[in-house]
Amino acid sequence: MSASAKKINHLGIAVHKLEPALAFYRDQLGLPLDSIVDIEDRGLRVAFLKAGDVLVELLAPLREDSEISRFLETRGEGIHHICFEVPDILSSLSTLSENGVRVINTTPSVGAEGFPVAFLHPKSCNGVLVELLDPSSQ
Amino acid sequence: MSASAKKINHLGIAVHKLEPALAFYRDQLGLPLDSIVDIEDRGLRVAFLKAGDVLVELLAPLREDSEISRFLETRGEGIHHICFEVPDILSSLSTLSENGVRVINTTPSVGAEGFPVAFLHPKSCNGVLVELLDPSSQ
Repeated sequence: MSASAKKINHLGIAVHKLEPALAFYRDQLGLPLDSIVDIEDRGLRVAFLKAGDVLVELLAPLREDSEISRFLETRGEGIHHICFEVPDILSSLSTLSENGVRVINTTPSVGAEGFPVAFLHPKSCNGVLVELLDPSSQ
Repeated sequence: MSASAKKINHLGIAVHKLEPALAFYRDQLGLPLDSIVDIEDRGLRVAFLKAGDVLVELLAPLREDSEISRFLETRGEGIHHICFEVPDILSSLSTLSENGVRVINTTPSVGAEGFPVAFLHPKSCNGVLVELLDPSSQ
């Protein structure tokens, strides 16, 4: 039994400010900008860019205690997480927990795109912060 | 003018050893293993896993002076690079250089999948090592 991850939904990239990051990812690389959304309770302004059927999420802090401020302080700008789609997030989380994978959120929350999401600990994922997202329920 | 990046081709994840990483990405997450390839001149053993139409590349060192050994020593395991497909790599590299983006390889080399590739400097890409790959020529 596995989590049955099917595809990458998005990549999160932590940046200090959105405009200089858009100047590279949108203007230089050429990825179309889909939307910019403020997520007040997480202290984030997020730009969604399209790279085929995968989104690139540029995550910028709206305030000093944002969800990515500590990452930016200690690691600097860079890739923050990879999000994989799973067909049944509750079943995936339960299977992974039973198999000894460290699950950060045993109960899913609602992510920036409006779908249930949960994070796995980088210690269980070879140094990568892995997010699971269930596109079947909203 | 931009590099006209269209989609993500693959994500490179640096790992110390392939088997424990496969135990998570293949067995726990459930990504199908496509192939395992040794790239002797870069000192790498690479496992390709399928996540929809994006590949996850697990990069493990075959020797101490491998292409990812310094990264593993200084940063530990984690996401190493993102590779975007471009329709004309020579044109993309020339456009980006003219626009002041720091290009690591002004002349493409042949990547693990057999296509022309070139890297952009993380200082120009918000801390991300970005690879460009041209799937139109082989």
